[in-house]
Amino acid sequence: MNRWRLDIEYDGTNFSGWQLQPGERTVQGVVEDAVEVFCTHPARVTSAGRTDAGVHALQQVASFVTHVERLPRSVVGGLNGNLPDDVAVVAAQVVAAEFDPRRTPHVKQYRYRWLDRPAISPLRRNRVWHVRRALDVAAMAAAVSSLIGEHDFSSYRAAGCSAKHPVRIVESARVERRGDEVVLELEGRAFLRYMVRNIAGTLNEIGRGKYDSEHLGEVLARRDRSAAAATAPARGLTLASIRYLET
Amino acid sequence: MNRWRLDIEYDGTNFSGWQLQPGERTVQGVVEDAVEVFCTHPARVTSAGRTDAGVHALQQVASFVTHVERLPRSVVGGLNGNLPDDVAVVAAQVVAAEFDPRRTPHVKQYRYRWLDRPAISPLRRNRVWHVRRALDVAAMAAAVSSLIGEHDFSSYRAAGCSAKHPVRIVESARVERRGDEVVLELEGRAFLRYMVRNIAGTLNEIGRGKYDSEHLGEVLARRDRSAAAATAPARGLTLASIRYLET
Repeated sequence: MNRWRLDIEYDGTNFSGWQLQPGERTVQGVVEDAVEVFCTHPARVTSAGRTDAGVHALQQVASFVTHVERLPRSVVGGLNGNLPDDVAVVAAQVVAAEFDPRRTPHVKQYRYRWLDRPAISPLRRNRVWHVRRALDVAAMAAAVSSLIGEHDFSSYRAAGCSAKHPVRIVESARVERRGDEVVLELEGRAFLRYMVRNIAGTLNEIGRGKYDSEHLGEVLARRDRSAAAATAPARGLTLASIRYLET
Repeated sequence: MNRWRLDIEYDGTNFSGWQLQPGERTVQGVVEDAVEVFCTHPARVTSAGRTDAGVHALQQVASFVTHVERLPRSVVGGLNGNLPDDVAVVAAQVVAAEFDPRRTPHVKQYRYRWLDRPAISPLRRNRVWHVRRALDVAAMAAAVSSLIGEHDFSSYRAAGCSAKHPVRIVESARVERRGDEVVLELEGRAFLRYMVRNIAGTLNEIGRGKYDSEHLGEVLARRDRSAAAATAPARGLTLASIRYLET
């Protein structure tokens, strides 16, 4: 039996997120279907974490076990031949039997993108949060330093979040302008449900001048979801990379 | 009466190109419809040039005439409110009555993108030509210098091209790697139909080692369409910018 690691890219626009749900089109669902056709047996495909409906991944990491013996390039080609064009296996490798994409220590990077100009961008319409007025990037960049370290992120947690406790460690946080976009990047081991999008929603209010840069940390200190702004749209969020520390 | 210049971005994936065609969904068609609703009168919208089905534009320039008086930001907002989400007016301005997006002197930049890796990219699937094996970028870059200057481009002209003569001036030409992509950029006043995609098709054969870098210029010298490779896919091509020399 071999345990395989898959590095997967997907356009989340037409998916109800990663996780299997009856009657919904999910990334896990189409990947499990492809594995079943390729391996000629059903297999559970687990990932480093769920992504919500509409959220993209440049690098999601998933894993499954099979007795089928194949070269990595044959697994990439064979799975992609059975996947729809909004999901692809970018790399495949045999890993240690104990590899678990969720539990093996790693750092995830999430990226949230705004386009701040009067007109939408047709070519990036599913990838950015479009806001008409220019954002105050300096204020947003100053704000995110308050997130770094270990904190109780209850203020930025979704109502339906099933995590056992609300404490998470943010290893790095930055906001910068990239051309006509403003980009937030957060790194950490694990995130609460909607955490990045709730942070982005509150950052957006700082960017448009409703609050000053202290506000993001003040909301965090309140440990109260109602202190934060509305959740930012899913389309702006991408799981950018996952770096495993032991492999 | 005011003559307006519109700078337009579009995702060409679901369009039968720029130019109006009965029964087809075209960019010109949806823009003319939006202008008619906004101005409450029909108007012809002309552009700097056609783009073919599936070809994108980061900056297409178009123009129309109306007696309606509005601020530029109101024209941008008003037209975008009547456009589908795969087309947007990014900027609008009143220009001299004699401005003609096609005839007023300008330089166009076209960009052709390859993704050369085993797996497709779901997030860029409508923007790049995916080829499985790594391209020889140095050979492709050396090849394109043969295009610069005034040449008879009959070898890279579409069978159905309606241009009066096949001579065009390429002002600059380069190929370079950008991350996991290979990018061709060509600048010139005007291009023949399929010219960039036919050049890209032949460059692709140099990139994959079927021919050496001299081949692109040798094909050009033949002045014979049958000497070149098949036309590269539309999805890799973007009209990147148009620079007017007089305005």
